[in-house]
Amino acid sequence: MSRIITLLTDFGTADGYVAEMKGVMLSLVPDAAIVDVTHDVPPQDVESARLALARYWRRFPPGTVHVAVVDPGVGSARAALAVASDDRTLVGPDNGILSPALLLSGAQAVALPVPPTAAPTFHGRDVFAPAAAALARGTPVTALGEPYDTPVVRRTAEPQRLVDGSIQGQVIAVDRFGNAITNCLGLRGGTMEVAGRVLPVARTYADTPPGTLTAICGSNGLIEVAVRDGSAARELGLARGTGVIFRPRS
Amino acid sequence: MSRIITLLTDFGTADGYVAEMKGVMLSLVPDAAIVDVTHDVPPQDVESARLALARYWRRFPPGTVHVAVVDPGVGSARAALAVASDDRTLVGPDNGILSPALLLSGAQAVALPVPPTAAPTFHGRDVFAPAAAALARGTPVTALGEPYDTPVVRRTAEPQRLVDGSIQGQVIAVDRFGNAITNCLGLRGGTMEVAGRVLPVARTYADTPPGTLTAICGSNGLIEVAVRDGSAARELGLARGTGVIFRPRS
Amino acid sequence: MSRIITLLTDFGTADGYVAEMKGVMLSLVPDAAIVDVTHDVPPQDVESARLALARYWRRFPPGTVHVAVVDPGVGSARAALAVASDDRTLVGPDNGILSPALLLSGAQAVALPVPPTAAPTFHGRDVFAPAAAALARGTPVTALGEPYDTPVVRRTAEPQRLVDGSIQGQVIAVDRFGNAITNCLGLRGGTMEVAGRVLPVARTYADTPPGTLTAICGSNGLIEVAVRDGSAARELGLARGTGVIFRPRS
Repeated sequence: MSRIITLLTDFGTADGYVAEMKGVMLSLVPDAAIVDVTHDVPPQDVESARLALARYWRRFPPGTVHVAVVDPGVGSARAALAVASDDRTLVGPDNGILSPALLLSGAQAVALPVPPTAAPTFHGRDVFAPAAAALARGTPVTALGEPYDTPVVRRTAEPQRLVDGSIQGQVIAVDRFGNAITNCLGLRGGTMEVAGRVLPVARTYADTPPGTLTAICGSNGLIEVAVRDGSAARELGLARGTGVIFRPRS
Repeated sequence: MSRIITLLTDFGTADGYVAEMKGVMLSLVPDAAIVDVTHDVPPQDVESARLALARYWRRFPPGTVHVAVVDPGVGSARAALAVASDDRTLVGPDNGILSPALLLSGAQAVALPVPPTAAPTFHGRDVFAPAAAALARGTPVTALGEPYDTPVVRRTAEPQRLVDGSIQGQVIAVDRFGNAITNCLGLRGGTMEVAGRVLPVARTYADTPPGTLTAICGSNGLIEVAVRDGSAARELGLARGTGVIFRPRS
Repeated sequence: MSRIITLLTDFGTADGYVAEMKGVMLSLVPDAAIVDVTHDVPPQDVESARLALARYWRRFPPGTVHVAVVDPGVGSARAALAVASDDRTLVGPDNGILSPALLLSGAQAVALPVPPTAAPTFHGRDVFAPAAAALARGTPVTALGEPYDTPVVRRTAEPQRLVDGSIQGQVIAVDRFGNAITNCLGLRGGTMEVAGRVLPVARTYADTPPGTLTAICGSNGLIEVAVRDGSAARELGLARGTGVIFRPRS
């Protein structure tokens, strides 16, 4: 069976950087199954990468190696991490990108040594790709570096419960469809106030006439503001950080 | 030998939705060879997806599983389909995206049950990915759901033969190069009238000086309007639906 | 072990052309491991493709087959090449895209026959994909065509040493981050003059405060002009061909 290595970067593909990483990994593990997650993370946007990783890392089978490199601090003193968590392993810079795995009970992190020959601008190729290959070959995380007990951890902002029982939240991401994803869990339904509108939380886009605004409970349980067949973010001027008020059904 | 599963969506990759689908499939079929077709279909553009699928689905070897999810109606009453056709299988929403396979004689379609736990906004992950995995493991289409005899079928508009023998057609797609692909079969050559110009149908781009307009017979037999080293669509204002007149060589 | 075939094009993915190539290759070599390099090369930009290929082609293990198709002259008299170099093989049009492999001592090139049934607009599918499949199955390059001794070779412009010891170079590429990569080797450090600014060559982005201009020695040894957390190309108006002066540390 192939060893699965997934790859998330903000490198784009056209410049050949991602291909260099793939070449390094396949030279060390020729039968690896490299799975592209994305190379289209907005440049340097660690927060977007963290939220994407939260979605997928545990959907892959145990034994999967996840590489996640969005790395504005490359070449600085920031640590390079390998993490073992929930039977998967991950490598990436110590800037919070790996938080979803680090926050799980039992997670173990080590600091990867940076060889003196590593290009200070491209740890993806010279540090993370070789480490991922070692993990794919079965090397345990603990054999790759010294334990590292103070990794940077980012958390999604918690919504606040107000005295009247409503929930004050915010937009945490805007996806390709212009859906604005909030930090409000919405499985029970209710109404969402955003940009001066009050929207009932519907079950799915199709419950709404085309072109109209709606709030729905998204596939990860969080409420999204959407325009059916349009872009809610563009129409309402929503962006990361825009405030919302959710009033759960009582 | 790996089981080949191809993947076409309009999800982009940055948000992690596609990675969730890949994780689900690889958890069920760890040795699947997942082949990215594209995730850059314009959002909700079922028609583009259908035309792309028509190009590639039979180029893959028998046994291939094709996943095609452009799904504006997700969560509505539209059926979720699995199709067997010409020794390949396909899954996708019942909105015409799978028409190239459905139109073939002998095609069989079933409606996939939607489990109550499926997110109503993400059948790609919760309905189509598991169905594709089952097909890749060898489960027959007929074991996945009840026969479904009324799938939505879309056809490319047929060009009309006029009394003078000319063919009245239209642009059906514009590709990345700005080439405007028409619905006129052009293997015999002739002239193409478009946006007030009359262009001879050349054999290939290189038969034309750089920067000039040309019509050629494209790689699927249809006449395309192109500008060598430029964009015909931009230069002539061509878009899906723009009318053309083809006069075949007599 | 899977046979690795890498794929670089300027086709984008949405139109289905790349999928057609993948289908052709997997029909001939079902256990091939197809690795996407990129499909986002700017349309017809052979020079970008050549520079990307230079980065990655030897990072992949011996035996890898590289397909590189950016082909403005498709259908013209330009040759279609297969190349053996340094234990890897490559296929692509004879327009300089394969130069990094051709320039290596011992490289062998053959001209691939173009079958009369090949679409004159899509040799990627009808000439290069079948040739790549044959190479992946172990067919030697010399069995695929007649020796071809005059391939087009492109070289990166050499910087000029001036009488005062400084180096007159130019920008050869701009990457996704807006970093402007020059043709000046900079391992020893020094200062870079560009767009009226004089910048010390730093070790890495992180040696510079966010938002400020810097020059660094990039991961392939060439000096890049960068803005930490910004785009140097946009801020200074840099593009391929912009002149620079490098003064090495003495």
